[in-house]
Amino acid sequence: MGRTLTYPKRASNTVNRYKHRATYDLGAIHSIVNDSKVLHVSFNPGPDDPFPTILPMIGQMGSFDYPSATIDEPLECYLHGYVSSRIMNLARNSDEDGEGLPICIATSKVDGIVLSLTPNSHNYNYRSAILHGYAKLVTSEEEKLWAMQLITNSVVSDRWNNSRVPPDRAEMSSTVILKVKIVDGSGKIRDGGVSDQRKDTENGDVTGRIWTGVVPVWETYGEPVASADNKVVQVPEHVTSYIAKKNAENRSYAEAAIHVQLPPEEQH
Amino acid sequence: MGRTLTYPKRASNTVNRYKHRATYDLGAIHSIVNDSKVLHVSFNPGPDDPFPTILPMIGQMGSFDYPSATIDEPLECYLHGYVSSRIMNLARNSDEDGEGLPICIATSKVDGIVLSLTPNSHNYNYRSAILHGYAKLVTSEEEKLWAMQLITNSVVSDRWNNSRVPPDRAEMSSTVILKVKIVDGSGKIRDGGVSDQRKDTENGDVTGRIWTGVVPVWETYGEPVASADNKVVQVPEHVTSYIAKKNAENRSYAEAAIHVQLPPEEQH
Repeated sequence: MGRTLTYPKRASNTVNRYKHRATYDLGAIHSIVNDSKVLHVSFNPGPDDPFPTILPMIGQMGSFDYPSATIDEPLECYLHGYVSSRIMNLARNSDEDGEGLPICIATSKVDGIVLSLTPNSHNYNYRSAILHGYAKLVTSEEEKLWAMQLITNSVVSDRWNNSRVPPDRAEMSSTVILKVKIVDGSGKIRDGGVSDQRKDTENGDVTGRIWTGVVPVWETYGEPVASADNKVVQVPEHVTSYIAKKNAENRSYAEAAIHVQLPPEEQH
Repeated sequence: MGRTLTYPKRASNTVNRYKHRATYDLGAIHSIVNDSKVLHVSFNPGPDDPFPTILPMIGQMGSFDYPSATIDEPLECYLHGYVSSRIMNLARNSDEDGEGLPICIATSKVDGIVLSLTPNSHNYNYRSAILHGYAKLVTSEEEKLWAMQLITNSVVSDRWNNSRVPPDRAEMSSTVILKVKIVDGSGKIRDGGVSDQRKDTENGDVTGRIWTGVVPVWETYGEPVASADNKVVQVPEHVTSYIAKKNAENRSYAEAAIHVQLPPEEQH
């Protein structure tokens, strides 16, 4: 009750611009991550390469050690990958000296396009989050199976129990799960309407010809299309209810975001 | 005619897994980038920080020097930011020794959820792209104005000419544009239906109880909501036509992707 855990602020996760939109709350950041179909994972390929690189991966926050942990408590990030991929080899090697591979995980979701009087005041309504942490391979079979279930159920809720499980030996060994011990994180959330400066809002020539407002944007799940080989006549309830729930949630978030009051700094 | 430019393959942009889905074509990669509302930009904050970090930014591919260049020709990536942000300071400093700040740009779009018999064969239909390159600040006023127009029109087509332009002195100086000279890039595109292994497709107990198919996913633009201060009665044509075009394109891509034939390696 009233306890809000926050990530520590370090130089590399501290949001400098529009501080009022920044959040360090574990719950807010973890929710943005768990709501994302794809995460972008950045790592440095090696000392000879000047460029960090980015891999799209599927992942979820969770706690194997404390399964009752809620979204606003300390969690690890579990990422799904393939045995042969470079990030897995790097994590495997870095594991030997202890800490794991330093990575950054990022995700962003656009909730609306904010069309204002002047290009500079244009904006998006959006939610974004980053996490920094050390990635290691999960070696315990039990934890790996648990993480595979967590990740599969993030694709469609309850899909694990509605598919052919458990994975066989070959499937278990071709799948690698990275467990990321989180060091810090931050999120940014922008909600609200148009914010223009007085020099424009008080200029009748400008306001008389330029339309301002917000176009809500959300991810839509369409009608399921059965595969040619599918033998089950009816689309199962865990699929139809997931689609209905996500469509309602996504749309109502985007539409409600428009009406959130802007912080005082942006009211002109 | 018949000329397809491709990015060079280096260790850090070469796709190891599912090679048949990889593309190095400039046109394909640039299109994925230009179609993205947000790009994730990764960079290393400094020698004392083990973690690369990621910033969500708005950007577009284009050529100021060769304005007639088409999407499949060599282009730079222009990224929009704020004077005070860390990446801008790093790019400003790295500019002095010549090459610019080494960064990675990534974007991914989910087009469908592929629900198959076993968790391991679950997949997404998606398009993703990464670019590696050196980022410098744009110093020419003319190029900066050109890039601001390019980026504003990526938010909504033709928005620049339908807003209060040109930017005034304060607006020009508070905006910083990064120009990224691209060194290499790669893309991955997954289209198609369900791919399961024979051990499952030939098991009547499995196929008799597990539904398989694809749920298409796309980004929807909703009804524009005018701001409280808006004085223009009708939502202008550049906004309504952009929404209609994007909704039709996004939905038809996701639905058509389901019916693309899988490559031979994935047909069982």
